[in-house]
Amino acid sequence: MGAAFSYLTSEIRFACPSRLDGAGAAGRDADCAAAAYLTISDDASDGAEGHGFVFSVRGSGDMQVAAIEATMAIIEECDLDALLGDMGRTWRTLVDHTQRGWLEPDGGVAHRAAGAVINALWDLKAKRAGLPLWRLLAGMGSEELVGLIDFRYLSDALSPGEAMAILDGARPRRAERERRLLAEGYPAAAASPGELWYSDELLARLCREAMASGFTQIKLKVGENLADDLRRLAIAREVCGPDVAIAVDADRRWGVEEAVRWISALSEFDLHWVEDPTSPADILGHAAIAHAITPVPIATGEHALSPVMVKQLLQLNAIGYLQIDATAVNENIASLLLAAGTGVPVCPRAGGAGLSEVVQHLAMFDYVAVSGSSEGRAIEYVDRYHEHFVTPAVVRGGRYLAPLVAGSGAEMLSTSLGDHMWPMLAALDGVA
Amino acid sequence: MGAAFSYLTSEIRFACPSRLDGAGAAGRDADCAAAAYLTISDDASDGAEGHGFVFSVRGSGDMQVAAIEATMAIIEECDLDALLGDMGRTWRTLVDHTQRGWLEPDGGVAHRAAGAVINALWDLKAKRAGLPLWRLLAGMGSEELVGLIDFRYLSDALSPGEAMAILDGARPRRAERERRLLAEGYPAAAASPGELWYSDELLARLCREAMASGFTQIKLKVGENLADDLRRLAIAREVCGPDVAIAVDADRRWGVEEAVRWISALSEFDLHWVEDPTSPADILGHAAIAHAITPVPIATGEHALSPVMVKQLLQLNAIGYLQIDATAVNENIASLLLAAGTGVPVCPRAGGAGLSEVVQHLAMFDYVAVSGSSEGRAIEYVDRYHEHFVTPAVVRGGRYLAPLVAGSGAEMLSTSLGDHMWPMLAALDGVA
Repeated sequence: MGAAFSYLTSEIRFACPSRLDGAGAAGRDADCAAAAYLTISDDASDGAEGHGFVFSVRGSGDMQVAAIEATMAIIEECDLDALLGDMGRTWRTLVDHTQRGWLEPDGGVAHRAAGAVINALWDLKAKRAGLPLWRLLAGMGSEELVGLIDFRYLSDALSPGEAMAILDGARPRRAERERRLLAEGYPAAAASPGELWYSDELLARLCREAMASGFTQIKLKVGENLADDLRRLAIAREVCGPDVAIAVDADRRWGVEEAVRWISALSEFDLHWVEDPTSPADILGHAAIAHAITPVPIATGEHALSPVMVKQLLQLNAIGYLQIDATAVNENIASLLLAAGTGVPVCPRAGGAGLSEVVQHLAMFDYVAVSGSSEGRAIEYVDRYHEHFVTPAVVRGGRYLAPLVAGSGAEMLSTSLGDHMWPMLAALDGVA
Repeated sequence: MGAAFSYLTSEIRFACPSRLDGAGAAGRDADCAAAAYLTISDDASDGAEGHGFVFSVRGSGDMQVAAIEATMAIIEECDLDALLGDMGRTWRTLVDHTQRGWLEPDGGVAHRAAGAVINALWDLKAKRAGLPLWRLLAGMGSEELVGLIDFRYLSDALSPGEAMAILDGARPRRAERERRLLAEGYPAAAASPGELWYSDELLARLCREAMASGFTQIKLKVGENLADDLRRLAIAREVCGPDVAIAVDADRRWGVEEAVRWISALSEFDLHWVEDPTSPADILGHAAIAHAITPVPIATGEHALSPVMVKQLLQLNAIGYLQIDATAVNENIASLLLAAGTGVPVCPRAGGAGLSEVVQHLAMFDYVAVSGSSEGRAIEYVDRYHEHFVTPAVVRGGRYLAPLVAGSGAEMLSTSLGDHMWPMLAALDGVA
């Protein structure tokens, strides 16, 4: 009998901070961040627990929790040490090609659930090793890292041997980069200034605040009304001056032809990137848009895009920046290697509860051990929800400080878990 | 106050028939078909109910039921007549771009749930109209049909105007095709003969039975062992002779290069198509394989592929046959139009409980009102599970007979629902 373990799942909801969306009262419609949360624990003397989550959308919590439970059922009889000891095999067990591959070819609720499970195991593995996740990963051998990846659908673009070569190629000067990372941190990009519903005054103030805080890249949402976009971009450009990078994010609002027209109309503002111009599933559409709007680059990837989709976006030179999410460490590593193989910078998205805390580890691992560069790269940052995490991301002078505490960053404070669990405990008071 | 309604969800599991897989005892591992099932009802005097389901995989039932409930929460306060009266708007409400589009760009558990809901509404709408679904759809005006489709991500390949032109172009001789359909039925293809675990003797016998039943197309699973595939294809070709079409199905087992090598090694057997050679998400991979294995065509689509994926497969000439599932009528219509626009035949897949019953309506609607042809087309047929449905699909002489009873075909017998509900009612006997 091996090391048994237990787990707990819960749905978490955060109300939108009222400054940001004007929704004062709490309630279902005001919940703008939701997560399905997982804690894995055993009776080991170190008391370490593994924490993972799916950052998700309103109304998806029940199914996401059910999906995590269905995924845990796959491994609940397994030996915990064996699971932690071969994280490549564990990942392949969780995503089981014959069933899950049919259910959700390109990710979705079940796939995100598998990500929460593997990430909770990574959190526990890092804690047991006494290392922050980025250091645990960077300390692994090339062969071990390559063994984490399922190459079945990737090898026409990246073979295990090519992945080894990328990792081995990054070994020289790793110690130097690690020292530099610890001393200087990693670039951050401010996503706060640009929600569509902000007043012009608030937009200008947030732009000034971002600059004063040391950010050199900001982001504005676009795509609802062209006149509004032109006016808001003019304000942002005027406040920020020519040297701050301004990215725009369309949140998938456009079809292919509409995207080309709209982005062309915004071209005078020297856009740093256009994020999510159309359906994330439309690889050819991204390529067509990218070709038409050159030299403005496209950024996408926040939708837990599988490495199979990332592969294709890169094969068609459809994106200038790859945005990854904190979905599943094993797949994130595959995407980092695919991007490094084609020289496309990875800029993780982090506009949701807990994302900064986890994705920073992936970007720092990339810098130290994969791409070997932070050039043209930045991790998104929004000043929200960090207070709920045991080891909140810290940004100073526009840069993420490298986390030093053991784990993946996913662990929430128990008080925050209690306060934001759904259904709210308070609402259950009347139940016998 | 409008027409209120209520709904019930349940998880359904069927054990594998023992002849087919040798699994004698019932139990979780022997459940080879699972569904999340939805019934919508109101207090209208006609007593009609809307039935819909997600055909799914083992272990996904809980999350799929939770997803259906989360989807129903979106519309539960709506007026039922209003929902049924504008099924295009209802579909757009269910899939809500800003949230669901982020969650699952290309379908998955949440998207399939939206499909079960819209399909249950289609079932009710057809019953209220007193028409089988295929006739309800074929009787709609071109403008009404085009209004069912969300063109946002499709219009670079198919505009609403082009869709209108396809539908209008099929209007002449519709009555003639409908008469022919009622008299002669629609071609069926036998999927029964070729499971990987069948003995050579069983394979040969099932091939003979398929031919004796009038089928002119059969399907064999491949991809586990090349020597086995070669031997089994030789048996099938010898038994069936040169005039029966033999398709093979790889169930996503291969990477791109492996698929090309494997299919090339099978080329002597004059393959009718190769189904699901690789990841359904790999559009470029399908195109690369298709190019390399010409003239053997690829068939894919059973994974509830969204029309955005179908669009791309067609844009790259990556498939010779489009296989649709019974996932969401509105999206099925979009896919039928995309295929008709490029001349690619649609051959619905139906290898699972209830799929024949529903997809036959889509293929027959396609024949009467969209592509206007049954040339090169066939609906898959497996002789399993039909006895659980109120209006089981009927195949005679290798052809589906056109269903004449009102509805979509999705309604299960209440006795079957009771017998196959999970957790089994019997197992709950001891619960107070």
